[in-house]
Amino acid sequence: MTDSGFSLFQITLQQRTASVETLLSELLSDRPQSGEISRPPRLMAAMRHGVLNGGKRLRPFLVMESAALFGADNLAALRVAAALECVHSYSLVHDDLPAMDNDDMRRGQPTVHRKFDEAAAILAGDSLLTYAFALIASEETELDAQARVALIAALARASGIGGMTGGQALDLEAANVKPDEEGIIRLQAMKTGALIRFACEAGAIIGHADTKDRERLAEYGSAIGLAFQLADDLLDVTADASNMGKATGKDAAAGKATLVSMHSVEWTKRQLAGLVAQAEDLLAPFGEKAALLKDAAHFIAERKN
Amino acid sequence: MTDSGFSLFQITLQQRTASVETLLSELLSDRPQSGEISRPPRLMAAMRHGVLNGGKRLRPFLVMESAALFGADNLAALRVAAALECVHSYSLVHDDLPAMDNDDMRRGQPTVHRKFDEAAAILAGDSLLTYAFALIASEETELDAQARVALIAALARASGIGGMTGGQALDLEAANVKPDEEGIIRLQAMKTGALIRFACEAGAIIGHADTKDRERLAEYGSAIGLAFQLADDLLDVTADASNMGKATGKDAAAGKATLVSMHSVEWTKRQLAGLVAQAEDLLAPFGEKAALLKDAAHFIAERKN
Repeated sequence: MTDSGFSLFQITLQQRTASVETLLSELLSDRPQSGEISRPPRLMAAMRHGVLNGGKRLRPFLVMESAALFGADNLAALRVAAALECVHSYSLVHDDLPAMDNDDMRRGQPTVHRKFDEAAAILAGDSLLTYAFALIASEETELDAQARVALIAALARASGIGGMTGGQALDLEAANVKPDEEGIIRLQAMKTGALIRFACEAGAIIGHADTKDRERLAEYGSAIGLAFQLADDLLDVTADASNMGKATGKDAAAGKATLVSMHSVEWTKRQLAGLVAQAEDLLAPFGEKAALLKDAAHFIAERKN
Repeated sequence: MTDSGFSLFQITLQQRTASVETLLSELLSDRPQSGEISRPPRLMAAMRHGVLNGGKRLRPFLVMESAALFGADNLAALRVAAALECVHSYSLVHDDLPAMDNDDMRRGQPTVHRKFDEAAAILAGDSLLTYAFALIASEETELDAQARVALIAALARASGIGGMTGGQALDLEAANVKPDEEGIIRLQAMKTGALIRFACEAGAIIGHADTKDRERLAEYGSAIGLAFQLADDLLDVTADASNMGKATGKDAAAGKATLVSMHSVEWTKRQLAGLVAQAEDLLAPFGEKAALLKDAAHFIAERKN
């Protein structure tokens, strides 16, 4: 803890958040970039509204800290972090649509389809997803072609049918046929876990880590990804709405099975402690350099909102 | 013309169409591939419904013929062609949604959101777009990393804010503020032109063509892309609905300004002839090898449905 009461983790998270938001607002300006014919201002405004919304920027932080672990604390890592945040944001924009979760508000602001309209939200989401791949593929992302294409392959896998969108599809089906415990774990590993796992693996790719370390970072990502979802389910049961900035008790009201509802609050807290220990073990070989990533595991598992 | 009355162009188009459809139905099976946790069957069915719908497969043909021009008539070209068709198909699935064009039928079949539901159509479109990048980035696409990343950069540019989705956004805005001639040309170059241009440029990238030839193929793509749109606008005015398999006169009924409505049928026919001549000029240095690409320009400009 520093004198101001903020931990080094919190200060670093804030700094990284500021960097990624500055880059995103530059990249998503109305000014066409090389090879683009023009940028429709209303589409760009809808994209910015979907991305620059005060998110926690946890995924960008994980990309940048993981890359830093291998000495790659650079602009390439920041660009990949921004690309990942575009993918995460697109998924929220589409998830909020009337045909999906039908949410009017996100982080105290109207959702994109409420602020603009549904067509704009569909196109803004599509454009953010497409832009994420453009950003990583660009020669301005100063990485060799092999690393850029490896990042794209991993991101497309994590966010597609075998990952995020597949998990969203399973989540929709879960409203009709309730999944068992194994089904819930699979659903969550796809819907939220895959992208967090990618964030950590991406840092290793950017830092040209060897296969063993890349796998180690990916496994760390899987552990904190599962912790992220468990903490979310737990907060839905235990937190009050004012702390969360959104309605709580939604899962139970929707009759949605979670691991918390299948077991207990105490069981979930034990699982979370186990996942944090697992994450720390995976990072042990990196010693003090991995201190902030260990802090991130605690932050994710113990967060109050 | 052969004895059967089909031209070599038509036979080759049919053969290429069969190859790309066979590959797409293999790739989009329910069986998870390497790195994927699982594939939700209903999502996969919605994706297949959106892609395997009897399309003309003009873009895949252009990728494969352009690659063949540089001696690269191979599986890599077929995989890139399939990826491009995934992008084209996703754009149709989202375009058909109630919030966009609100179309119930496409090629005599219910659209994805009518056959499944809106949420499935949104996710199937998202998944097809994501899968296109996964497909090109994969090491199974036997191209060096430099070529794969160049293809991804070009595809993301052509299909994103400065290309296809940007053009769709401009098209939505055109309902409120009618664009002038320059605006219509820009809108069409983005909405339909950019992806056709990419198809031809992609063949040059796959074939490791030099910069001059790559630019030549891209320009050929721009010429036939514009011709494609002009022919479409012309058919909307002149064809009868039974030939088209969809309603005609839609543009005029919607009060939609097209170059045909701003000029005349005769003017449009002259423009089309000029674009075909331009396409042939651009291909002249390749001699007889480019015969089928020249035929493609005629096919596009002179098609009756």
